[in-house]
Parts: sequence; C-alpha cells; structure tokens
Amino acid sequence: MIKAYAASAPGAKLEPFEYDPGPLLQDDVEIDVESCGICHSDLSMLDNDWGLTEYPFVPGHEVIGVVSAVGDNVSAVKVGQRVGLGWHSAYCNTCHTCQSGDHNLCSSAEMTIGGRHGGFAEKVRAQASAVVLLPEGINPDSAGPMLCGGITVFNPLVQFDIKPTSKVGVIGIGGLGHIALQFLNAWGCEVTAFTRNTAETAELEKLGAHKVLNSSNTEELEAASGYFDFILSTVNVKLDWNAYVATLAPKGRLHFVGATLEPLDVNVFPLILGQRSVSGTPVGSPATISKMLDFAALHKIEPVTEYFSFAQINEAIDRLRNSKPHYRVVLKR
Amino acid sequence: MIKAYAASAPGAKLEPFEYDPGPLLQDDVEIDVESCGICHSDLSMLDNDWGLTEYPFVPGHEVIGVVSAVGDNVSAVKVGQRVGLGWHSAYCNTCHTCQSGDHNLCSSAEMTIGGRHGGFAEKVRAQASAVVLLPEGINPDSAGPMLCGGITVFNPLVQFDIKPTSKVGVIGIGGLGHIALQFLNAWGCEVTAFTRNTAETAELEKLGAHKVLNSSNTEELEAASGYFDFILSTVNVKLDWNAYVATLAPKGRLHFVGATLEPLDVNVFPLILGQRSVSGTPVGSPATISKMLDFAALHKIEPVTEYFSFAQINEAIDRLRNSKPHYRVVLKR
Repeated sequence: MIKAYAASAPGAKLEPFEYDPGPLLQDDVEIDVESCGICHSDLSMLDNDWGLTEYPFVPGHEVIGVVSAVGDNVSAVKVGQRVGLGWHSAYCNTCHTCQSGDHNLCSSAEMTIGGRHGGFAEKVRAQASAVVLLPEGINPDSAGPMLCGGITVFNPLVQFDIKPTSKVGVIGIGGLGHIALQFLNAWGCEVTAFTRNTAETAELEKLGAHKVLNSSNTEELEAASGYFDFILSTVNVKLDWNAYVATLAPKGRLHFVGATLEPLDVNVFPLILGQRSVSGTPVGSPATISKMLDFAALHKIEPVTEYFSFAQINEAIDRLRNSKPHYRVVLKR
Repeated sequence: MIKAYAASAPGAKLEPFEYDPGPLLQDDVEIDVESCGICHSDLSMLDNDWGLTEYPFVPGHEVIGVVSAVGDNVSAVKVGQRVGLGWHSAYCNTCHTCQSGDHNLCSSAEMTIGGRHGGFAEKVRAQASAVVLLPEGINPDSAGPMLCGGITVFNPLVQFDIKPTSKVGVIGIGGLGHIALQFLNAWGCEVTAFTRNTAETAELEKLGAHKVLNSSNTEELEAASGYFDFILSTVNVKLDWNAYVATLAPKGRLHFVGATLEPLDVNVFPLILGQRSVSGTPVGSPATISKMLDFAALHKIEPVTEYFSFAQINEAIDRLRNSKPHYRVVLKR
C-alpha cells in the first residue's frame, strides 16, 4: 500500500489516503518521494477545472525522490539513484512524435496526476522513460519545480532556437517567470521583465532582468515598439496582446506557456508586415528536461521556494491558491 | 514625360496621365514596361482602403520590362537587361534588417505604388537594388504576377524552412493559391488544396494538389485532425481558424499571407498542447525573389494568366474586381 494525500471531490481538502498500486510494471520505476512542488495545474486538476479529474485525486507532479524499485525491463535507472518526475509519467515511445524525440507532444502521453496517483505521497510510480536523473550540482530540495515550471519556460528556448544575442521579454514574474529570467540571463540574452509592480525592480534584476518595463504604462510599451525578438508569456489572464505584438522586432515571436483561456484576438496585419509569430508549448521531453538540469547546474539556476512539510499540505495549497508565494511552493520531508 | 494611367480619386476609372519623373537618381533605374500584373492590392490602393493613397494614383507593381537607363551608381543592372519589379521600389539598405538580408521587412522600404508612380505606364523607375534580373527559362509575358503574388507564397517556404517531407495545405485557390500549389508540389511536399468548390478538383490536381479537401464539409476538416505541418492561408476573409489549427500536426504552423482584417480569435490551449504557431509574412526580399525565379524556371512554374492590353485597363480592373479570373490578370503591350 502507498500512503498519499487525496481529495475526494472538486476543491476538497486533502486527507490521508492509501492505495494499492499493484505489481510494478516491467517498464516502470517506484520512487520514494523526498519533495514535491505544488503547481497551479495541481490546483486546476484538484478543482476539476479541465473536466479530467478522477477522485480520489492525489496531486503532485514536481517530484524529486530516490528510486526504490525498478521493473524487469528497466536498465537506464537504478535503485538508489535520485530522479525527477514531472507532468508526464509515461509515453507510448512508438509514435512518430516519440520517435522524433518529442515525447512531450505524444498524443498518448500519460499524466502523473491523471489515470494514476501523483507525488503528494510517500511513493509514486512512473515509466522509467519519463523520469530523469538528477545531475550533480542540483539542490534536490528546490529542484521539484524545475520538473514542470522550469521545463515549461526552458523548453521554448530549445524548440525555437533562441539566440544569445536576442532581446527577450518575460510577461508575468511568478512561479514560471522567475525561473525564466534566470534561464534567459544565463542563455546570454538581454532580458526585460514586464511587470505591473516596479517596486520589485531590484528583485527582478537579481533574478536576471537587465531591464524592467512597467507594463501598465502604455507609453513604456509603445516606446518598446519593434524591440523584442522573443516574448514569453507565463500569465493565464487576458492582456492587450496586440500591444505586445507591436513590441516585437521583425521576425519576433510572442510565445505562450500560460494557458490564457480567452481567444487571442491578434490582428493579422502586424504579423504579416513584420513576419511575426504567435505560438505555444507545453512541458518538454525527458531529453530536454535533462538538458535543462545540466544547464541549471552549470549556471546555479534554482527556483526560489517556500517549504512546507507534507503534514502542512492544505496550508501549502492555501498559500498558492490565495496569496502570491515567492515564488514556488514545495512540500518536503 | 512618362505616359501612364492614373485614377484621380478613390475607385475612379483610370485615365491617360503624364508626369515628369525628374532627373534619374544615382541609385535608380528606368524600365520600359512590357507587361504588368494587376494585384488585389492595386485595387485596395486604388480605392484607398488603407488610407495611404495619393492621387493622381498610378497602380501597377508586378512589372516586367527592359532597363532603358541606369543612374550613375548602378552597376548590378545594365541597359537592355530584362528585369522584374514588385511591391517594393527602394530600401534604405543600411538598417539592421536590410543588412541582414531582410529588405522586405525594412521599415523604410518604399512602395512602387506609393510616393511614386507605378507600372501601369510606359516607363517606371525604381532603386536598382529593388529590381531583379529575369533568368533564362522564365516566360516574360506571364512573369509579372510572380513579383508580388508569387513571392508572397514562395517567401514563407524559405523563411520557415519548409521541408520537402512536409504535409502542407493551401487555403484559397485564387491568384496566390494557384501559384502556391505549383511551388509546394515542386518543393516535394504532399499538397492539399482546401476548397469550397470541389468541382475544380481536376484543375487543382493539375496545378499540383495531391489531395483536395472540401473545406465547407466539417467532417472532412475534422478527419484531418493533427495532419498538416504547414497551412498557408491566402484568403482575406474570416474563417473558422480554430478548426484549421486543429488540423495542424504537432509543431505545425498556420501561416497568413492573406490580410484578413478581423482579429484571429485563436485559442491558446491548442497552440500550447501541440507546439503550434500562427504567423504572417509580406512579400520577399530581392534575394528571395531571385531564388524564386530560378526555382520557377527549373520547375516550369508559371502563373495562369488572362491578358489584356494597356488600352483595356479599366476592363481588366473590372475583371479582377467583379469576377473570378483564372487566375491572374496581366496587362501587356
């Protein structure tokens, strides 16, 4: 039996919960959970915002832990190794997309917190191909949020071949954005933080921003007309997207990792005249997650976290739900 | 004095018109116009749809002709050579964008039909860097539409590095789309024509379509879910863009060269989940125009045209404005 914390209904408090995971599958590993980040998508799933949730529901998909058992077919990961597990817990490994290295886009990819139970638990299981080894130089306590939040902002830099000579902007400096600033700074880019709270300027600069632009100031936005090669939006609210498109340089890209629910209402003419793109990406593949962890270790990039014990799990969820943590919330033993 | 045809007010008929072009500038060439295509943007400018038009207005920016004079600084083009002139008649040649080879995105680029008089005339002038030599193997009579319509659909294949192994679709098989089918077929792609008029299937196949999809049939669109790597939209009307985004494969791109005026209302979630992009491009640079003409000569790609004499100019404009020519209208001597 695996001891976990589960919600029995949408939005319910988490309660201790035990389940029998059955025999370990040949391609799977079992992980003793050391820490687990809490992501906004855990809340969305907890509340069944996307209509996908099965109850009892065990959240948690930013797992760091030690492998405690491996299936018969598993050779790439060994018992005793420290690994990370993120949004996806398994891939088909046979479709064109997987065979192209784009496991994160596999239409049969399985969620860590859907169809199985997640990482707010003593143990969690996943296909070996969905876990990544933690490299030397990564702080395991704070690494959980890298497995979902971190890879979400790192992946587009790889996918779209962002150049170190690029001028980039980040919209929304929260759980995702504060990691994006660090990555982009280490990537060599000139980094601008878009914020409505310029009181945080010193903090944003410390995280990697070379410039801070007050996005509630229309004149500042207009002065940046045609400036950015790449803008990463991490927010899930509606903004004046055409105003941001106007700040893109020729061939610039406005890229979404924050799932804003309202349609984009982007005008076509500015896209055509400037050869501009609008796009989105989900989390990354295991290969890209490994690449990210190596890059983070080299450049000492680390999520800024607030820690809670697993016993404080409902308090931790409230912290993320009702206030603005600086910046990620992590449960640890 | 140069003899031309000009409109004196928005939407007016063209009348014979003479103007003094002044001394030939050092970097410019003068071209004896042999033929000139009529493009939808000539009508938009004639009607002052974009608020940019100065009257008297001489349309015409798909020019084929022979160089009759060159300015003192011009060495790349010689008197007697046959050249083409498209949407742009001059570039600054000094900005970052020009210096990167992206003259077509230069914010100081000059229009052939704005700030100077266009190609519905005996002669037209342009900066030498904005004209391209016509290679052997190109039919000069039909080549005019390549200089704007052709480059508009060819340029994105170069800019986005479309692979010959890609599955591509073309929305709108008119003046632009019928050239796109030919280019994409020769490019090696599997080509699908989206059309509401499947009676034209045999004709679309002859132009290069391997498949014809009835875009007014919702079931056919849904059956193509996740299929296309690249879809090129040449229309300027509002379609159900989210239905087309749903037909994109992972990493697919919905690309606009038709200037639809309504905002796109594209949902973000399908962009994120499939790493999909939405984008636009204008015409291409002189280097890309030359590349296109070489490619067209090799593969015997040619706009399908209806010819009118310059004396029939108002009839030709009516043909484009009020009916559906097959496919481009060209004035020739």
